[in-house]
Amino acid sequence: MVAYIRQETMNKLKDVIQLRIRYSETDQMGTFYNSRALEWFECGRSELMRNRLGMSYAVLEGKSVFLPLVEAHLEFQGGARYDDLLRISSGVELHGRAKLRFDVEITHSGTGKPVVRGYTVHAFTDNHGKAIRPPGWFVEMFKKAGG
Amino acid sequence: MVAYIRQETMNKLKDVIQLRIRYSETDQMGTFYNSRALEWFECGRSELMRNRLGMSYAVLEGKSVFLPLVEAHLEFQGGARYDDLLRISSGVELHGRAKLRFDVEITHSGTGKPVVRGYTVHAFTDNHGKAIRPPGWFVEMFKKAGG
Amino acid sequence: MVAYIRQETMNKLKDVIQLRIRYSETDQMGTFYNSRALEWFECGRSELMRNRLGMSYAVLEGKSVFLPLVEAHLEFQGGARYDDLLRISSGVELHGRAKLRFDVEITHSGTGKPVVRGYTVHAFTDNHGKAIRPPGWFVEMFKKAGG
Amino acid sequence: MVAYIRQETMNKLKDVIQLRIRYSETDQMGTFYNSRALEWFECGRSELMRNRLGMSYAVLEGKSVFLPLVEAHLEFQGGARYDDLLRISSGVELHGRAKLRFDVEITHSGTGKPVVRGYTVHAFTDNHGKAIRPPGWFVEMFKKAGG
Repeated sequence: MVAYIRQETMNKLKDVIQLRIRYSETDQMGTFYNSRALEWFECGRSELMRNRLGMSYAVLEGKSVFLPLVEAHLEFQGGARYDDLLRISSGVELHGRAKLRFDVEITHSGTGKPVVRGYTVHAFTDNHGKAIRPPGWFVEMFKKAGG
Repeated sequence: MVAYIRQETMNKLKDVIQLRIRYSETDQMGTFYNSRALEWFECGRSELMRNRLGMSYAVLEGKSVFLPLVEAHLEFQGGARYDDLLRISSGVELHGRAKLRFDVEITHSGTGKPVVRGYTVHAFTDNHGKAIRPPGWFVEMFKKAGG
Repeated sequence: MVAYIRQETMNKLKDVIQLRIRYSETDQMGTFYNSRALEWFECGRSELMRNRLGMSYAVLEGKSVFLPLVEAHLEFQGGARYDDLLRISSGVELHGRAKLRFDVEITHSGTGKPVVRGYTVHAFTDNHGKAIRPPGWFVEMFKKAGG
Repeated sequence: MVAYIRQETMNKLKDVIQLRIRYSETDQMGTFYNSRALEWFECGRSELMRNRLGMSYAVLEGKSVFLPLVEAHLEFQGGARYDDLLRISSGVELHGRAKLRFDVEITHSGTGKPVVRGYTVHAFTDNHGKAIRPPGWFVEMFKKAGG
């Protein structure tokens, strides 16, 4: 069922960040609560766009281009605890004619042990939430960046 | 230091709701994470406005009146765990000329044991975040409701 | 890619709850932030277990049986805003020999318009996080409940 | 009412971190949701303990010493938005015989404009949640660190 999760090496446009698990992100099972993974995916996306795409997501929204999430998949591979340092590796590619897809792998920063992997698919919308094609300047910027 | 926290009986405009603690709201200490209390205060405010003030906060924002939080105080009095049923008692009053103050007491629904108490103070702003006086119709509605 | 998401009618053991979107669950796009859906899935699971399985998840953990999430899939189908009342329909089934699978559909309570659908897969572990087979008494209880 | 909030310069044991606002931390008002400030206070505490106290909070819990929050106060002084870089300045001192108090100031990293200030007070408990005096080795370590 998970054969469609890509390896991080398959995306050409990639970025890596580190992130420490907050106490607020734990739950009574002693690990992190599952939904935090989607928030960490977002941290990866934000920095990938800033560092590799040449335009932060904040600036993109300022141009009235929004990227709401339309699909997400997560596999929880191993535990991680408060104060653990994580490595978040994100890649991005154009997905069909009007979507972006981010593939993410989260591992322990020191040991490389897997924690979560998954992907998110995003539509393009205007500031009224209406679906749009990615603007020409965005596609050009994306390809120029190597995506 | 906490003498200024009012008893719930002191507010004339009051409401009570029940709420069950989510797993996502716990932390590895086995109780609820501290910041959730501010989210529960918000649940109490929302229902107090809907049930007693005659106008939900959603409708109020639709009229371009916003109530951003400017001050909050919390006392954590006793533990509470996943799946516990809480009683949230909220009261509201006009605070000075241009603010609202909500006083909140959270207890265990069954035993009445105290969990958190505190208050939040809210400014009135327009949809650009600019501070405003509470509109005349709001004050009238508030007083008519018994506040 | 989403053909494997089951219709809610396919599960025999089902439950429905209602839930109002909190302000804390919104984001600056004006809808709910994506990760909240996983928290709402959890609310559906908790009530399904309490109401239909004859044992709350809190009691299950008290017996040292934990159900950590190992896989999740989400499709975001339509917007929903602060204070909207949602209908969360959850079904559960045994998944292979040692997992549980919950299928969830979230719609607007009034109009039935779809908001999110997806599923979560859960392993069984003991209180040390070690994978276990579902205890015999659990499987018996599950089947007796109609699952 | 807020005269009791200390200036950051008053604590001897201090630390400063930077933190970028996540999209998940915004709300539909376009700023950050109020409860996130308590989560950011926690980030400040964690790094202050690691960097200045010579023992991370994770290690402290490993020694069965917990610091649950018993009181918190927050003043929201100015807006901050998604992707803004914040400066979190935290100080700590022993508070009475059996508590710790952290004072925090959050400002915009670039301009220094104030965002939130406040404090949290923490009890010492053992791993059963029972209140304890701070262990002698902790007080010694604290004073040696300059607190």
